[in-house]
Amino acid sequence: MRFLTLQRLMSVLIVGSTALDSIKTPKAENPRLLGGSASYAAVAASFFGPVKLVGVVGDDFPKRYLDLYRRHRIDLEGLQILPGKTFHWSGEYEQNMNNRRTLLTELGVFENFTPTLPKAHQTEPFVLLGNIAPSLHHHVLDQMRRPRFVVADTMDLWINATLQDLLRLLKRLDAFVLNDSEASLLTKEDNLCVALKKIHKLGPKYVAIKKGSHGSILSGPEGIFLCPAYPLRKVVDPTGAGDSFVGAMIGYLAAAKGPVSNNIRRSMIYGSVVASFCCEGFGLNRTTRVARAQIEQRVKELEQLTRF
Amino acid sequence: MRFLTLQRLMSVLIVGSTALDSIKTPKAENPRLLGGSASYAAVAASFFGPVKLVGVVGDDFPKRYLDLYRRHRIDLEGLQILPGKTFHWSGEYEQNMNNRRTLLTELGVFENFTPTLPKAHQTEPFVLLGNIAPSLHHHVLDQMRRPRFVVADTMDLWINATLQDLLRLLKRLDAFVLNDSEASLLTKEDNLCVALKKIHKLGPKYVAIKKGSHGSILSGPEGIFLCPAYPLRKVVDPTGAGDSFVGAMIGYLAAAKGPVSNNIRRSMIYGSVVASFCCEGFGLNRTTRVARAQIEQRVKELEQLTRF
Repeated sequence: MRFLTLQRLMSVLIVGSTALDSIKTPKAENPRLLGGSASYAAVAASFFGPVKLVGVVGDDFPKRYLDLYRRHRIDLEGLQILPGKTFHWSGEYEQNMNNRRTLLTELGVFENFTPTLPKAHQTEPFVLLGNIAPSLHHHVLDQMRRPRFVVADTMDLWINATLQDLLRLLKRLDAFVLNDSEASLLTKEDNLCVALKKIHKLGPKYVAIKKGSHGSILSGPEGIFLCPAYPLRKVVDPTGAGDSFVGAMIGYLAAAKGPVSNNIRRSMIYGSVVASFCCEGFGLNRTTRVARAQIEQRVKELEQLTRF
Repeated sequence: MRFLTLQRLMSVLIVGSTALDSIKTPKAENPRLLGGSASYAAVAASFFGPVKLVGVVGDDFPKRYLDLYRRHRIDLEGLQILPGKTFHWSGEYEQNMNNRRTLLTELGVFENFTPTLPKAHQTEPFVLLGNIAPSLHHHVLDQMRRPRFVVADTMDLWINATLQDLLRLLKRLDAFVLNDSEASLLTKEDNLCVALKKIHKLGPKYVAIKKGSHGSILSGPEGIFLCPAYPLRKVVDPTGAGDSFVGAMIGYLAAAKGPVSNNIRRSMIYGSVVASFCCEGFGLNRTTRVARAQIEQRVKELEQLTRF
């Protein structure tokens, strides 16, 4: 997109897990794909501008995945490569592709991950705290110099295991993204409108609840936005769709002109679109083959699909 | 709405069940409310123009419910009042208001219901075949003279028990409306995009799949439309929301100028809005208190809620 090259591009700082995922679906099995919340989010954000990745991998991490990051112009100065094994997750999806169970979690070098930010990273204006322990999010924010916009993603594990850390984190965020079951778990409330209000009271100005194939809902000072999911005929592997969603969101926000309030709805639309591509292949297989023009095409389709 | 009084208003023929519903939720219990697919749909359609109701009740049917129909200018020439008991259904909702179980079904005079159309009903252009046995839908269509637009609703019972009747019916419809679990049951397909294509092959030009609080999805010659649900802070009783949705749809279509293809997306938006009011009270308690201006207000809100 020409307009992107004409303005100063703000880069995005993305912290999260970097992993090898072994994914089994009723149709296929794929071992040791590139995975982790930061990997999905960084590739998704890279469509919109430069990305700085902060994470940790072991010395078994395949060179082809480092090359993959680089092909997406992802800055790896903040990626620690430590002696030991890369975080390895393995999961299996049921026939309907909604329910999955974890078969294996080997933390490896991730167990003692301390996200230390290079100097150049500490002044980034747009920050995504991808799904890792809230204590690590705090550690990242403690090193930063007044970022302009901080968004965090989470999962049920942190709500259950480290709630106090998470509640303290919520007060440090501009936006918080979670899925519907996590929102209900956090607020003890099934109604999403009520859950949104309760989460606002915990701190974040913007709250987005993801509902998978049912889209997502944003609440903020400008009111509610009902964001559609891009309808897919075939879901190959939904792993990383939520991370891709929030990665594209922060990437779009950093690249767009004007205040966040003007751009946040469209950032979610871009999030939906990049997440839809993510679901069409195993791991990052499909996303890494997508051109920006294809993203713009689906954004246009979503405009058409929702017009009345 | 002034424009509605300036054009010739086409009335809508609605056939379905007319019942007494005893509804239990975790918060309250309401015996013998006015219920049935035709009652909900007829009241919903009545906001947009005249409605002709076809159904059957027993001689125990409360006069106050006949008065309620009349207050909504619903033509009752096709409502049979037979010696015996009115169809009585009783159900209980779980805490999340999504799952419900039937406690009791007393068919009464409904058991031998034969929907015989008065002469004036046989030339109606817009027909809603509300949720009753497909064999009764066939009987209605057999009496009609080339209606302009026929839409039918269904439920899992008819897919399981009278599939051949239903499949024959699908070839006689312009539009078919069902919910997501029914669509999966009918097509053996979890993916709604694929299910929509399969249902088109069975006959209907338009297919709409309802997803409750997640909205609905329309497929037709003009492509797919993702219709939002109006977000509610409190769901009191979802009984009849689906019937209200399709009732408002057909009512809006009959009242709107121009071809159905120009109006069907907006008709679903009106369906969503009237269904949202339905959920805010027991039975028809809230819907019957709504003014047309309140409906227009929520339609405007949905425009605002989905804009990007």
